[in-house]
Amino acid sequence: MKLNRKDILGIQELSVDEIHLILDTAESFIEVSTREIKKVPTLRGKTLVNLFYEASTRTRTSFEIAGKRLSADTINISASTSSMVKGETLIDTAKNLEAMNPDIIVIRHSAAGSPHMLAGLLKQSIINAGDGAHEHPTQALLDLMTIRSKKGRIAGLEIAIIGDISHSRVARSNIYGMTKMGARVRVAGPATMLPRGIEKLGVTAYTHIDEAIRDADIIMMLRIQTEREKLNIFPSLREYAKYFSLNRRNIELAREDVLIMHPGPMNRGVEISPDIADGPHSIILDQVTNGVAVRMALLYLLTGSNES
Amino acid sequence: MKLNRKDILGIQELSVDEIHLILDTAESFIEVSTREIKKVPTLRGKTLVNLFYEASTRTRTSFEIAGKRLSADTINISASTSSMVKGETLIDTAKNLEAMNPDIIVIRHSAAGSPHMLAGLLKQSIINAGDGAHEHPTQALLDLMTIRSKKGRIAGLEIAIIGDISHSRVARSNIYGMTKMGARVRVAGPATMLPRGIEKLGVTAYTHIDEAIRDADIIMMLRIQTEREKLNIFPSLREYAKYFSLNRRNIELAREDVLIMHPGPMNRGVEISPDIADGPHSIILDQVTNGVAVRMALLYLLTGSNES
Amino acid sequence: MKLNRKDILGIQELSVDEIHLILDTAESFIEVSTREIKKVPTLRGKTLVNLFYEASTRTRTSFEIAGKRLSADTINISASTSSMVKGETLIDTAKNLEAMNPDIIVIRHSAAGSPHMLAGLLKQSIINAGDGAHEHPTQALLDLMTIRSKKGRIAGLEIAIIGDISHSRVARSNIYGMTKMGARVRVAGPATMLPRGIEKLGVTAYTHIDEAIRDADIIMMLRIQTEREKLNIFPSLREYAKYFSLNRRNIELAREDVLIMHPGPMNRGVEISPDIADGPHSIILDQVTNGVAVRMALLYLLTGSNES
Repeated sequence: MKLNRKDILGIQELSVDEIHLILDTAESFIEVSTREIKKVPTLRGKTLVNLFYEASTRTRTSFEIAGKRLSADTINISASTSSMVKGETLIDTAKNLEAMNPDIIVIRHSAAGSPHMLAGLLKQSIINAGDGAHEHPTQALLDLMTIRSKKGRIAGLEIAIIGDISHSRVARSNIYGMTKMGARVRVAGPATMLPRGIEKLGVTAYTHIDEAIRDADIIMMLRIQTEREKLNIFPSLREYAKYFSLNRRNIELAREDVLIMHPGPMNRGVEISPDIADGPHSIILDQVTNGVAVRMALLYLLTGSNES
Repeated sequence: MKLNRKDILGIQELSVDEIHLILDTAESFIEVSTREIKKVPTLRGKTLVNLFYEASTRTRTSFEIAGKRLSADTINISASTSSMVKGETLIDTAKNLEAMNPDIIVIRHSAAGSPHMLAGLLKQSIINAGDGAHEHPTQALLDLMTIRSKKGRIAGLEIAIIGDISHSRVARSNIYGMTKMGARVRVAGPATMLPRGIEKLGVTAYTHIDEAIRDADIIMMLRIQTEREKLNIFPSLREYAKYFSLNRRNIELAREDVLIMHPGPMNRGVEISPDIADGPHSIILDQVTNGVAVRMALLYLLTGSNES
Repeated sequence: MKLNRKDILGIQELSVDEIHLILDTAESFIEVSTREIKKVPTLRGKTLVNLFYEASTRTRTSFEIAGKRLSADTINISASTSSMVKGETLIDTAKNLEAMNPDIIVIRHSAAGSPHMLAGLLKQSIINAGDGAHEHPTQALLDLMTIRSKKGRIAGLEIAIIGDISHSRVARSNIYGMTKMGARVRVAGPATMLPRGIEKLGVTAYTHIDEAIRDADIIMMLRIQTEREKLNIFPSLREYAKYFSLNRRNIELAREDVLIMHPGPMNRGVEISPDIADGPHSIILDQVTNGVAVRMALLYLLTGSNES
């Protein structure tokens, strides 16, 4: 089976079958990263460009490793060190890259919709590595893969997402993906961090963490943007931690076999207590391992390397 | 035929035959970047170092892609993040690199003549990727390649270069190359941006864009350094745009089949209007594509990979 | 013979036999960097991560070239551009990297002991590329290799190390290595730069350079951290240069065949005069060449690529 898409822009437009195809392919790549020789020649002679307008080591490194394990040539461009970017429109930068004939451009940008704009203009495959507060589809795919492989299914699970729902592209992509795959999703956060009308996405919203995590199969804690403290969205980190952190006490409300997720980087002691982050329920590092596999799968599927 | 040179420092010292050899070789590499597998083993086991003391994404990326498509190992060093550079002379930095046995060092530096100094000291091939306001030979070579391939020839063409001629290494390298290849070159810019005695380089200088572009076959617009606005070299960007931008009105003065070039990054609405940049006469993105091919050609010729 | 270690954390814990094994292996790799095709397939499919929390071009480039010449995939992460690092503990960053299944992590960090902490937590091999003022083992190994290959032996040599002994991880690692290999080590520097009790490491300490370098076979000059001038550790660079630089006059006190070393980057005219740095006794650039070979040897030995 093949993926009939040029680009991966968001989870919203992916079908359930497409998601299963991507996760199945990713699972077949898990093994490559555990071999003695962690490399297959699949993407030899393909060029992958990581175009990051926002700092990111985790996601960039994951894509770079994924590309290299498939034998692609990888090029990193970061906006902070990029003159290409100064005084040049995003479209001109992208058109210039296109003219150098890469195969895939991975883009992270603070403006929602940037990857979609590029996808419409360029012949290359575009992968959205995070656009503003809109979507972060590869994160959601690795999360879905982790849930499916740990729980054996996604459908029917009770999943709680806790934190700044309004500003989180991770939350948004996961809500699309989890509901699509048949899970029931609850979100919780301070009222200032819950977008109005969030229920339209098919989730239940709470302003207390306890209600959201009760009997949950999965709890996904979001990173709190500590630099937002000044913006008066929430009173203080201390107060936030008091009311919305996951800790030894409130985790008891969840199912006994609850699994704890976090997209990283974690603020230990703020949104999650260290003993939970490192405890037996945590699958946070499985998420990272699966991230490389999901990205390998996408690079493989988008370059049509599976056609024959 | 082979290139009997260790280094590419400037267009000034290249012969017409050498330029044709480089452009012919570059044309043969154009095809590699359009293959399914964009990679040839020619430079396997060679090490290319990009040593950039000035920020540049376009040129660095072009060299990096060129190296990788030839299977070279590529190493990027940027001065802004480089401790090698702090408190160390350029010569010591270069001698240290030499001791690590790379094959080619690509250098961009704000001091005119830096690449020439290194070329005299090091056994490695040096490629000048821009030295102060002196030369930018790989840019001129890709420009000449683009003109030759679009027009079938360079000799006899009327070429106008518009902008800050005084501070432009792109202009200087192109003037050397175009006149050498038999084109007639006119330059235009505000009087403060025209170097005294520029006519000695074999060009005609104008202070009005209209005179320079009349009946031109090629118009090359230079990027205006917007940060120079404060320096009173020109009154304002608005005023500059009014008198020296290329737009729908004045392009009518050129030949009907005029081709428009720009080394990028463009200031849309300053030196060039968007409809011209994106219009049917524009070959700006062909320049970028040819840039990768020209750099592949130079890496190939300098490493003597064509000898045998 | 094989190296029975997962990590290279310091010279202090290496045995004489282990050091000889590393140097012998490094010598066999010297030849690879002089070949027409400077690449062997030994580490194909292995992933090397350079995790640098302090700026370094020299050491990072040396490791990157070493990895590439062995066909490893190399990933660079620098803290200054790293969001992975912000608000995340070093352990979390390392655990995240571990989850991506690299084979070797090279770490430089301002906190002494960081590499040791990671070595205890991660299954990957850790190489210390400098931890605070503690150790810089790969620098000492390349220094020992350079001495052994130039002098034919290390045992019995008189070696002087001059400069800021207190804050130098290069000095510390070399003192461990040189004394272990049977050399006699003298150190000299201003009293404020000589750690109390340094004699316990088996060296003789002097506060005048002349006493330390008299009849020396090897003189190793340390880089003075010019930014420390303000801290009143020494009166001024000018004064420091007057009393502690190596120059044409005082080098006469050493043996006629004395060899001069410096880990770089050099402050010419401060700790070393230019004519000495470039003179016939200098083996400073041999150190750099040997650095690539020593790092190739460590990557090779740690990945067990020599087992069969």
